[in-house]
Amino acid sequence: MLICRVVKPLVSTNRIPDFEHKHLQVVLDGSTQKVAVDAVGAIPGDWVICVGSSAAREAAGSKSYPSDLTIVGIIDHWDPEAAKAEAARIAGGPA
Amino acid sequence: MLICRVVKPLVSTNRIPDFEHKHLQVVLDGSTQKVAVDAVGAIPGDWVICVGSSAAREAAGSKSYPSDLTIVGIIDHWDPEAAKAEAARIAGGPA
Amino acid sequence: MLICRVVKPLVSTNRIPDFEHKHLQVVLDGSTQKVAVDAVGAIPGDWVICVGSSAAREAAGSKSYPSDLTIVGIIDHWDPEAAKAEAARIAGGPA
Amino acid sequence: MLICRVVKPLVSTNRIPDFEHKHLQVVLDGSTQKVAVDAVGAIPGDWVICVGSSAAREAAGSKSYPSDLTIVGIIDHWDPEAAKAEAARIAGGPA
Amino acid sequence: MLICRVVKPLVSTNRIPDFEHKHLQVVLDGSTQKVAVDAVGAIPGDWVICVGSSAAREAAGSKSYPSDLTIVGIIDHWDPEAAKAEAARIAGGPA
Repeated sequence: MLICRVVKPLVSTNRIPDFEHKHLQVVLDGSTQKVAVDAVGAIPGDWVICVGSSAAREAAGSKSYPSDLTIVGIIDHWDPEAAKAEAARIAGGPA
Repeated sequence: MLICRVVKPLVSTNRIPDFEHKHLQVVLDGSTQKVAVDAVGAIPGDWVICVGSSAAREAAGSKSYPSDLTIVGIIDHWDPEAAKAEAARIAGGPA
Repeated sequence: MLICRVVKPLVSTNRIPDFEHKHLQVVLDGSTQKVAVDAVGAIPGDWVICVGSSAAREAAGSKSYPSDLTIVGIIDHWDPEAAKAEAARIAGGPA
Repeated sequence: MLICRVVKPLVSTNRIPDFEHKHLQVVLDGSTQKVAVDAVGAIPGDWVICVGSSAAREAAGSKSYPSDLTIVGIIDHWDPEAAKAEAARIAGGPA
Repeated sequence: MLICRVVKPLVSTNRIPDFEHKHLQVVLDGSTQKVAVDAVGAIPGDWVICVGSSAAREAAGSKSYPSDLTIVGIIDHWDPEAAKAEAARIAGGPA
């Protein structure tokens, strides 16, 4: 799963019926903006867990739902700088 | 899902029968050109939502349709510069 | 789907039985060489549409065929320089 | 499958019910931090094998579990520097 | 499918039962080391075809096997320098 940050809701009036009226969010995956179906009610600024692949479908509500990226959880506390430091410490540790 | 821009239709006369006569569009994903099945009737210049993975198949009409990238919605308003600025503002905000 | 160029056939005598005797082609995806199952009879130099993900399987003939990249169509006319110019023109147009 | 290193557990209280109470780990895939469902009981610093795609689902316990990255094994011995040297030796060997 | 080179076997004693006792190989995909299930009996130095996505599962023996990368064939002859030259020649040819 990806660690993304919610940017803002996305409006797409002309869309396929299978998409229904589910909430779409623009999320930031690193420096790339993607669109995710929101299954948890996230708000801009939230750090979230996004699931892709076929798992994104059932996570969005049913296995025929056409999502390839779904927000499945809001991370309780995420400090990207602290996380980077911790990752660097682990990476530099004994193999 | 990816945020892409439609470039132009793509003609491929010699293709597998499973592809039927559905409309194919060249889309720009960042700086990479890809081909997507068009399920909404987009035109060159439109900013669209493209779904990949197995979800692209049902989004194109049936779960046996051989697509791995399908245009599922046209974005109402998308200004890439404003979006980048908004993303940067969010990314620079409090963790 | 990816826009690739066919480089040459690939010979692999020692392969799993499920692969059968289908034709394998080395294709160029940007600057990366990949292997695709050929479902249309392409020849070196052809610009082709390659489908990946689970769709590559049915595109290769059956949903149990173990392909993750299948050539599904030959593009009628593709001039990469003209395509890049057109993409740049679209990208520079009004949002 | 990816060779990743476990960084730390991830807490997400607000998550979809399908995720149940399975353990989530932040893992390092090269320099990118991702989230994986832990099916083996790994601890920070462990080098692990992570499976993605639809295989991540059954690996996490059932084919309807919404994971796209699951830790499926702990590597007995992994020295990234020695591994890089060995890979370079192989890559420089006779074709 | 990817063109990879086999580096060495990988030992993971603590792994999920679904993985059974199948052989795992460290393979080099460009400069990235990945882990693949070996379905053909490759040895270090071999150039092999690796299949990913859901196709990796059946290629590894059954559609419930949790692999996302499986070695499905050994390439008869592969000279990476000659292949690069041939690809460049094709890429520089008439569109």
